[in-house]
Amino acid sequence: MKISFMKYFVAVFLLLIIKSTAIAQQHPNLVINREDVKEIKENLGKVPLFDKVFDKAKQTIDEAIREPIDVPVPKDPAGGYTHTRHQENYKEMYLAGIMYSVTGEKKYAGFIRDMLDKYAAMYPTLPLHPAAKGEAPGKLFWQSLNETVWLFYTIQAYDCIYDWLTPEERKNYEDNIFRPMCKFFVVNTRQQFDFIHNHGTWMDASVGMTGYVLKDKKLVQQALYGSKIDSTAGYMKQLQMLISPDGYYTEGAYYARYALMPFFLFAKAIQNNQPDMKIFDYRNQILKKFLYASLQMTYTNGNFIPINDALKEKNFLSVEIVDALDITYKEYGHDNSLLSIAKRQGTVMLDGAGLLVAKALKDPSNVKEFQWKSEDFSDGPNGKSGGLDILRYGPSSDEECLVFKYTSHGLSHGHFDKLSCLFYDAGKEILQDYGSARFLNIEQKDGGRYLFENKTFAKQTIAHNTIVVDEKSDYDGKMDISEKYHPDKFYFSDKNPDFQVTSAVDTHSYKGVRMHRTLAMINDKSFSRPIIVDIFSVESDKEHQYDLPFYYMGQFISTNFKYNAFSTNLSPLGKKNGYQYLWKEAVGSMNGTAKFTWLNDERFYSIVSSVDSTDELYMLRIGANDPNFNLRNDPAYMIRAKGKDHVFASVLEPHGDFNPKDEQTVNSYSRVKSIKVLASNSEATVTEVEMNNGLLLSLMVANNSSGKTGEHSIDINGKVYKWKGAVYLLKTNLK
Amino acid sequence: MKISFMKYFVAVFLLLIIKSTAIAQQHPNLVINREDVKEIKENLGKVPLFDKVFDKAKQTIDEAIREPIDVPVPKDPAGGYTHTRHQENYKEMYLAGIMYSVTGEKKYAGFIRDMLDKYAAMYPTLPLHPAAKGEAPGKLFWQSLNETVWLFYTIQAYDCIYDWLTPEERKNYEDNIFRPMCKFFVVNTRQQFDFIHNHGTWMDASVGMTGYVLKDKKLVQQALYGSKIDSTAGYMKQLQMLISPDGYYTEGAYYARYALMPFFLFAKAIQNNQPDMKIFDYRNQILKKFLYASLQMTYTNGNFIPINDALKEKNFLSVEIVDALDITYKEYGHDNSLLSIAKRQGTVMLDGAGLLVAKALKDPSNVKEFQWKSEDFSDGPNGKSGGLDILRYGPSSDEECLVFKYTSHGLSHGHFDKLSCLFYDAGKEILQDYGSARFLNIEQKDGGRYLFENKTFAKQTIAHNTIVVDEKSDYDGKMDISEKYHPDKFYFSDKNPDFQVTSAVDTHSYKGVRMHRTLAMINDKSFSRPIIVDIFSVESDKEHQYDLPFYYMGQFISTNFKYNAFSTNLSPLGKKNGYQYLWKEAVGSMNGTAKFTWLNDERFYSIVSSVDSTDELYMLRIGANDPNFNLRNDPAYMIRAKGKDHVFASVLEPHGDFNPKDEQTVNSYSRVKSIKVLASNSEATVTEVEMNNGLLLSLMVANNSSGKTGEHSIDINGKVYKWKGAVYLLKTNLK
Repeated sequence: MKISFMKYFVAVFLLLIIKSTAIAQQHPNLVINREDVKEIKENLGKVPLFDKVFDKAKQTIDEAIREPIDVPVPKDPAGGYTHTRHQENYKEMYLAGIMYSVTGEKKYAGFIRDMLDKYAAMYPTLPLHPAAKGEAPGKLFWQSLNETVWLFYTIQAYDCIYDWLTPEERKNYEDNIFRPMCKFFVVNTRQQFDFIHNHGTWMDASVGMTGYVLKDKKLVQQALYGSKIDSTAGYMKQLQMLISPDGYYTEGAYYARYALMPFFLFAKAIQNNQPDMKIFDYRNQILKKFLYASLQMTYTNGNFIPINDALKEKNFLSVEIVDALDITYKEYGHDNSLLSIAKRQGTVMLDGAGLLVAKALKDPSNVKEFQWKSEDFSDGPNGKSGGLDILRYGPSSDEECLVFKYTSHGLSHGHFDKLSCLFYDAGKEILQDYGSARFLNIEQKDGGRYLFENKTFAKQTIAHNTIVVDEKSDYDGKMDISEKYHPDKFYFSDKNPDFQVTSAVDTHSYKGVRMHRTLAMINDKSFSRPIIVDIFSVESDKEHQYDLPFYYMGQFISTNFKYNAFSTNLSPLGKKNGYQYLWKEAVGSMNGTAKFTWLNDERFYSIVSSVDSTDELYMLRIGANDPNFNLRNDPAYMIRAKGKDHVFASVLEPHGDFNPKDEQTVNSYSRVKSIKVLASNSEATVTEVEMNNGLLLSLMVANNSSGKTGEHSIDINGKVYKWKGAVYLLKTNLK
Repeated sequence: MKISFMKYFVAVFLLLIIKSTAIAQQHPNLVINREDVKEIKENLGKVPLFDKVFDKAKQTIDEAIREPIDVPVPKDPAGGYTHTRHQENYKEMYLAGIMYSVTGEKKYAGFIRDMLDKYAAMYPTLPLHPAAKGEAPGKLFWQSLNETVWLFYTIQAYDCIYDWLTPEERKNYEDNIFRPMCKFFVVNTRQQFDFIHNHGTWMDASVGMTGYVLKDKKLVQQALYGSKIDSTAGYMKQLQMLISPDGYYTEGAYYARYALMPFFLFAKAIQNNQPDMKIFDYRNQILKKFLYASLQMTYTNGNFIPINDALKEKNFLSVEIVDALDITYKEYGHDNSLLSIAKRQGTVMLDGAGLLVAKALKDPSNVKEFQWKSEDFSDGPNGKSGGLDILRYGPSSDEECLVFKYTSHGLSHGHFDKLSCLFYDAGKEILQDYGSARFLNIEQKDGGRYLFENKTFAKQTIAHNTIVVDEKSDYDGKMDISEKYHPDKFYFSDKNPDFQVTSAVDTHSYKGVRMHRTLAMINDKSFSRPIIVDIFSVESDKEHQYDLPFYYMGQFISTNFKYNAFSTNLSPLGKKNGYQYLWKEAVGSMNGTAKFTWLNDERFYSIVSSVDSTDELYMLRIGANDPNFNLRNDPAYMIRAKGKDHVFASVLEPHGDFNPKDEQTVNSYSRVKSIKVLASNSEATVTEVEMNNGLLLSLMVANNSSGKTGEHSIDINGKVYKWKGAVYLLKTNLK
């Protein structure tokens, strides 16, 4: 009796709790919830960084409130007034929502209401945006993506003032803005909504959040499982398909950054509204892996590795990384190495996670340095679609970092750059990826869109540090074919920091051509820094022209070969596939070891290559056929070889010191004496690098998958090279 | 009796003091003296910055001592081994000298002795250096300048161990190194020794210091008053001739930096040895003015304004500035605003002055911010050879800085750049001066010498932001003629920070052509930042072609005029006088207000000019006819006009914000609606700039010297413009 009464009592009590919690949590309950608000109220004035961010936000919104509200009829493309105004509007509504939640001051709620009134009056009258182009038009903005982001912020603002509004006001906004906008997304632009791509993720997140606030279960289900609620699309599918088991995001680092925001913030909304889904544990904590992989895809200066379509200005200071990092810190066990990045960011989210990070930063002894590491990322939902490797050496203050890209295509922003590499040193790009041809939000540059030259140059193979066969791009520049294939990992090892290796094979990019590139970061006590040995072999039954460009950054210093400079008349290198954009500045040749040296700031770099007299050595510069001067006029050095099988063997060597302060220069010449390809056949390629000091590096690379673990023996002019495994380094001292 | 005994006693006592002082001061007594040594000994371990510098020096020399001494037979040009080795040797001897003085450890003295033994054995056997070129050959180095610097440091080292050496050793070094080297300088290269030029200053200082140590009065007299001791040359003459009464050094900022070292360090040696000369008070404390003017010739990032032959890498962190600043701090009343620069230098001199600065830096509250100011520097010994003006606006963190050059030629490193200007903003160069074509100490680049292209491009008028008449340089590029003339100051005012003006006239650079350039930095509350209005009028009785290039830094964004781009074929702009180095990328034209916009980092800039349809608007890029790729491929925008009289009227406008972090761009278009030259005659030029917001700026510039102070009245189409003085600004609001 007593017991059963107790049972009843407990049951009723629990019910009451659940009910009151459910009511209490109702609004706001997307990214910021009532608990966050309470925490923030209690801590205001006590946590310096959070106070700074909060005060700045308050100042921003207080200033905005004093200005008249403008909700202009959409007209301009990105960078133009109406575009920027609508962007400002959603940011201001969002800030006003946070401010209202924390301070309870009605002026903030009133500001959002007044603005929503104008949107509610205008939105139903809008046709497609006049500057809209292509398949994903918006109404407020030229592309639906921006409109999605508008909803993403605005629904959070609406959620914050939901309880303050009258039912009539809510009905007005829901009927005239939120439901029609969601309908526009889910029905009219269904393809975008169900698109496995960052655009789709944004749309799913915005519609899903709207579903939660409007208590519209169908919208939530559609957001999570696709417009047909059949799990072929939607947020959950995006989480499965776009991120590899390692956390590598298939579009590359630049869009990983962008996608982190809807992925993480919607995850918070899911957690608040459907905690049973345990979204942060989903797929072995894939969100955590996603954030860490994205951070590893920065160089130590914070810049994202600019593979695929990427703006080089983007770094980990971006708001998306701030938010995802704060949430990761909160949800995944308070990793204090994230604090060193939070410190560089100098800002936090305006929610409970941001507050937690700011609290942790109060005590400097909490801060641990973030560790950039060598990485072997797989691509694809199952980690079987190639990958991206990063080899690193040295402290963050002066780190060598080599990136090797053998990923799948990477969706619509992918580049035709199979087996390309990038190199960083001394805090800067040394071998660059061009990134994208785009000036974000600059109206004069085609309304801030991707420029024509993005497709015709930046995406093409010749714009990358990899081989171009017969002046055509990978897969002949066809994305639909490129998306079907990917290179395969051959070997990776970072166990020995003085001999790190990455190696991959591509057999699809060019019909009948097998390409195998192996990059080794090799250090020796006699080196000032590690060198990169680059063995890039191509095999084919037919004659081809093979071009291997290196987009070096810096000022040309010298070559050891003679060349003919086109000093009084420049013409383009070719006619299509990106070749038309390259001015031919000089062409030379030699037989033996060709050395090309440049200076970047205070360090010299050389590319030292094994060539013969039939190879052509080009000096190129971007900028031909560019009447709008949309491209940067950066230089390149290119080796051209002709034949069936060929091995490009090069050393990339950082060396010396140019010290203008002390007026001293040392080691301005490469210390590589020679590089030779001793043998290359279907079993293996053997290369020898001899340094001036007599150190001999013999690098042996197995050429077939079956040989990855087996034993090898090659007799080269009577000398037998024996080794086991995929890649082997033998050091000998000749002196 | 008692009194006279006292007198006798006092006299003897004083004599003893004087005598002992004289002996006590004997060695070391050049830059560092016994008092410094005593002070340093007393303070070691107590002054963190000094300790850091001292410990680093000790570590450097302790490491050097462990290596075998190498005094190689001279062979290599700058950047090569023997060059660098001899440089290292003198630096090591110098450090060893300081270390011996302070610690008394004999290993340091022994190191210097062992090295001097080798030099004494080799030096008398040396012919001229095998890589020597031109008029100033050395023996240890390819040019006598480096040899002078060798002596400059080595004699200080010798001074430090003088007392420790045996008389025989001293005789050996003096007979086989110091006297023959001084003789080589004073007799064999007398022209250099008596040359009013930084080379001469270095030689005078080195020989003078040697004179003091060797107690050779004649050498000292020759160093002070020239080889003939007749005051036509020597250090005192250098002090008179090279520095204007304002402290402007006639070779410009880059060589001012370099000259500061011998000027200041020899001054210390003079003060130590001939205090009666009161060298630091000489010419109204000209050395103090020299240091401050040199600091004002940096931008807020610390870089020297790169007029004339200049390497852009040089900034106020250079050792020469460290030394001169420390000495100035000590000798001229402890100006604590110098400490903010000393703090950025992070190092001090290893002497009493350095110790004093390091002591002051112990207390952070001593540090005052250095104030960069607008400046009106005169050039020439009497301040009557033209000048160099600097207009500044805003805080050091984001300062606009306009430099206007109307100096005299500036000796052998001068450029043909009369009435050129440079512009800085946001911490960076916006309109650049190319500086010099040289890679200091990089052997591959012509042994680190000034390159061929320095003379044929960098020095030529077309390489600067000023008018070129008929594709010829000022004075037809003839230095001997250019040295005879200079432009004249017309007007300068920095009284009103919102309307600062500099104006100068040149009538000699081109026969029969009067050039008058007026640059005004104008701010208004409706501007985000000040704009520059540039009124450049030329008058001639004959028809000419006038070219006005602007070497802008950044990425081209847009024009408001049509142009024809040479997209598939580039050819040079001209055949000589520097024109051969410019690729012609595009040419356009329009009638009215031409706008040319570029982006530098996160800010936009426009040049907005009054043009008519006969003018040609060029887009250019450096790099043609440069088979060794010695030049940077920087761009330029150029306006070409033809006629007798012409006015180039332009606005240089910083505007807008490109924010990739927040993905927002504002004001990417110029806000200048139009610029018009309303009238220009022998009395005055009247220009009108109308902004989009209706603000009208009417700028009136008197055109003859007599009108500088008088009243003016010009009737332009019935509207009368009246003003008083050289330059007048009228603001009207049209809305």
